[in-house]
Amino acid sequence: MTDSSSRKETEDWWRTALIRMEPNQIDIRGHPIEDLIGNIGFVQMIWLCLRGELPSKDQSRLLEAALVAAVDHGPQAPSIAAARMAATCGVGLNSAMATGLNMLGDVHGGAGEQAVSLYQMALSFVDEGDTPDAAAAQAVKRWTADHGKYMPGFGHRFHTRDPRSPRLIELVQSAQRKGVVSGRAGDIALRIEAHLSDIKGRPIPMNIDGATAVIYTELGFDAPLARGLFCLSRSVGILAHAWEQTQQGGRNKGPLPKGHLWTYLKPSEK
Amino acid sequence: MTDSSSRKETEDWWRTALIRMEPNQIDIRGHPIEDLIGNIGFVQMIWLCLRGELPSKDQSRLLEAALVAAVDHGPQAPSIAAARMAATCGVGLNSAMATGLNMLGDVHGGAGEQAVSLYQMALSFVDEGDTPDAAAAQAVKRWTADHGKYMPGFGHRFHTRDPRSPRLIELVQSAQRKGVVSGRAGDIALRIEAHLSDIKGRPIPMNIDGATAVIYTELGFDAPLARGLFCLSRSVGILAHAWEQTQQGGRNKGPLPKGHLWTYLKPSEK
Amino acid sequence: MTDSSSRKETEDWWRTALIRMEPNQIDIRGHPIEDLIGNIGFVQMIWLCLRGELPSKDQSRLLEAALVAAVDHGPQAPSIAAARMAATCGVGLNSAMATGLNMLGDVHGGAGEQAVSLYQMALSFVDEGDTPDAAAAQAVKRWTADHGKYMPGFGHRFHTRDPRSPRLIELVQSAQRKGVVSGRAGDIALRIEAHLSDIKGRPIPMNIDGATAVIYTELGFDAPLARGLFCLSRSVGILAHAWEQTQQGGRNKGPLPKGHLWTYLKPSEK
Amino acid sequence: MTDSSSRKETEDWWRTALIRMEPNQIDIRGHPIEDLIGNIGFVQMIWLCLRGELPSKDQSRLLEAALVAAVDHGPQAPSIAAARMAATCGVGLNSAMATGLNMLGDVHGGAGEQAVSLYQMALSFVDEGDTPDAAAAQAVKRWTADHGKYMPGFGHRFHTRDPRSPRLIELVQSAQRKGVVSGRAGDIALRIEAHLSDIKGRPIPMNIDGATAVIYTELGFDAPLARGLFCLSRSVGILAHAWEQTQQGGRNKGPLPKGHLWTYLKPSEK
Repeated sequence: MTDSSSRKETEDWWRTALIRMEPNQIDIRGHPIEDLIGNIGFVQMIWLCLRGELPSKDQSRLLEAALVAAVDHGPQAPSIAAARMAATCGVGLNSAMATGLNMLGDVHGGAGEQAVSLYQMALSFVDEGDTPDAAAAQAVKRWTADHGKYMPGFGHRFHTRDPRSPRLIELVQSAQRKGVVSGRAGDIALRIEAHLSDIKGRPIPMNIDGATAVIYTELGFDAPLARGLFCLSRSVGILAHAWEQTQQGGRNKGPLPKGHLWTYLKPSEK
Repeated sequence: MTDSSSRKETEDWWRTALIRMEPNQIDIRGHPIEDLIGNIGFVQMIWLCLRGELPSKDQSRLLEAALVAAVDHGPQAPSIAAARMAATCGVGLNSAMATGLNMLGDVHGGAGEQAVSLYQMALSFVDEGDTPDAAAAQAVKRWTADHGKYMPGFGHRFHTRDPRSPRLIELVQSAQRKGVVSGRAGDIALRIEAHLSDIKGRPIPMNIDGATAVIYTELGFDAPLARGLFCLSRSVGILAHAWEQTQQGGRNKGPLPKGHLWTYLKPSEK
Repeated sequence: MTDSSSRKETEDWWRTALIRMEPNQIDIRGHPIEDLIGNIGFVQMIWLCLRGELPSKDQSRLLEAALVAAVDHGPQAPSIAAARMAATCGVGLNSAMATGLNMLGDVHGGAGEQAVSLYQMALSFVDEGDTPDAAAAQAVKRWTADHGKYMPGFGHRFHTRDPRSPRLIELVQSAQRKGVVSGRAGDIALRIEAHLSDIKGRPIPMNIDGATAVIYTELGFDAPLARGLFCLSRSVGILAHAWEQTQQGGRNKGPLPKGHLWTYLKPSEK
Repeated sequence: MTDSSSRKETEDWWRTALIRMEPNQIDIRGHPIEDLIGNIGFVQMIWLCLRGELPSKDQSRLLEAALVAAVDHGPQAPSIAAARMAATCGVGLNSAMATGLNMLGDVHGGAGEQAVSLYQMALSFVDEGDTPDAAAAQAVKRWTADHGKYMPGFGHRFHTRDPRSPRLIELVQSAQRKGVVSGRAGDIALRIEAHLSDIKGRPIPMNIDGATAVIYTELGFDAPLARGLFCLSRSVGILAHAWEQTQQGGRNKGPLPKGHLWTYLKPSEK
């Protein structure tokens, strides 16, 4: 291998379409950075980085609603609790944030990604000729067979009616009326919700993951980005909790006040 | 310890002013979540979570400019490179993001936080009666004595004039003319830049950390939040790079194409 | 919910059989810690924690060989490279280690776990009456159908004969002769290796993951623990590299020397 | 820059003395890996990687005792609790381990490193002519002035006499009698313990960090490696807890049983 072929290989190894730089110049997706700063919003920047093109104002607003909605759901979530605990362990705020984000795995942070896949599957059945109701039922059946009983995006252990979902669906329907989105994902999601409640005999409400997944699907994001976008949103809550904990103080805070767990860990009699 | 005193302690252990919940109700900083969704922007939500109150439109816009500016600086940054590599290792996008964030430590992600402290120190000298120029010089001297030669927020290994900084300073000055901010941090930062260039005999340009730190100081954020906000901003670039790498494919990508490093690791002759 | 039922639930939430404590007493798996310190080795302690009982000397020695073998494979591995880069970013050694470990995902660190599953599958075919050769071939076929072309534990991009594998297999066979293990996993693994080389028409050597998976299977570890044990082993290399980098110094080291990647990121002509 | 100078720079960028490789050959610190496997223990391998040379049997045994001692201290430690929670979030065991390790920051995992520094400081006062008792008192005074009231390695919130410390000190003294170590760190640590108890008027017992730091100091490890070695040791407990939790099951386990924290987060009356 010659040095110049080696160089070519290295160049290819790290190629990116996201950014181009030379001294005193930084282009993001072809836009000089100084043209973006102060002229586009943070959510437009997120879209530009992920999708390669700038969104319309209306598209950006809908994405923004999803990002606002998922910011926090309190310290009973393991990600938030762990970030608060990390903030008492002598690491920087960036590491406290990483601790929380790292927990948003398939179970804790993957429901939005899975719900996008569920909607896409249901919509593909519609495209193949099923009625929307049949497609919704079929998608639920298929998902259960492949992945088990947890239906991503529906049901909540605390809320019987998650206050975030109807508000987000309302915004999707409004965007649909303006022609911003097709409304198909919102429609199929509501049918899945109705079908699930029907077969369970009790309300199985669309939750935050189900509702934001509607928006991500309507806006054309690939399923894995639903997790990525959720991570960007929840990062805000993670940071805010880690910072609040930093200000409250405390050292090596575990899950319970000092001495509580202790009592559960007594050596057995011998 | 009675069970009820134990309960009281646990309650206190996890208290937060950020969120309140009961079934079907979620309040963020006292605002029902459904009133926020679709009505405030993501950057306003960030501010609300971190500060407890909603910002004005103009305050929000200035913060938004800082968040847009710091999104990405390419894969020569270890955080971005590591997130791209992680994306080829069989972990979720959330873990790839955590990998990048976790690297934004004191050296890689701490310059903004340090620059806020530097500006606050210089401004405290002004408050004590120094002229701005004397305060800038004194702050540089003090910082160097305490922390060594790296002056946070100034100098760049690639750019002689970082294209992001003048644009951000321009926005600060415009906000100052509108009475949104005092402009004191921007002013002292420019004096520090001039002083540094003077004593070094070559331009030591304000970099992205120095310029965003001006905005964070002007807007009244505590120094550690400068790192937190940088993390929120850079998370976007980290996610976008991890996602691009995911789409490019690859398995277990190291820092160099397969076989390259190999040649550097030959056992010595025996 | 009464406070005492709440307390009972919390107790159950955090129950563990690993450790019991009261003031001035710590029992690990029923053994007072002071009886373990200085009396059992680190590898025996690993086994005790993971399995609940102390291993025999011979079992411990075999596990020890696997742990020694997988410690390091150099900085072309993304986990090692990232840990070295993290060590230049201003985080503690613990965070540099976490960075490396976090990358040992399904692709980078999961091959041992998958190989244990592969061997267990092949051995179940033997139990059902297949000849060992037929079982090996059938397991390969089934694995490929379910998981694609990457056969965990076999093949290497650098080595045509991984020097670690024959040595580990030799130790397994020696332990078999002493009656420490059955030798069935070692036998089936060699048959898989022969079968793969046969159908590919070139050597597909058992690699470190395949060889250590033999040991883990022989010793009765569950498949996911193969990844866990690999993580314990590779942690040593990750720490040693992060520490070497710390001593070498450097700030914000990316994947290539400063300026190199730069040249690949030039803005395109306009 | 020519391609060959570029190549030379890259070679230097990633140089390491830890490992050398070429096809079918892997040398760790100059030893062919197949000579190490089955011939040296895991603790000797840890020493070899970190120090560059093999330890004596006695040195290795003393290090082994420290590694055994610190493996676990239960789920009231935030690192262990977070690893258990992570194991319910849908991430691999490697990421659960990384979550725990990442929390072993300056406060949670840094006491051993700090205690080594404290002992080194006290011993330097002895070298300068102080009596051991005066040196111990002086080191305590200096540490408090520089770092505040937390004296690393001494005091415990649960134990009045940590059962691990006397056992470890006993092993150090035994090694001293055999000439394996000088015993100076053990001696100064006991004097610091006596001095602290004296000035506080109650026992301030040497804790696990203080006792293992004695061993690390006696064996000549640099202070930051005390944290690194603690991380290797505690990784075992982190893995064992994450694995136990995996087997117990659960999804998205937070710090308290479902519904408990909930009651603490009620929106205030309006």
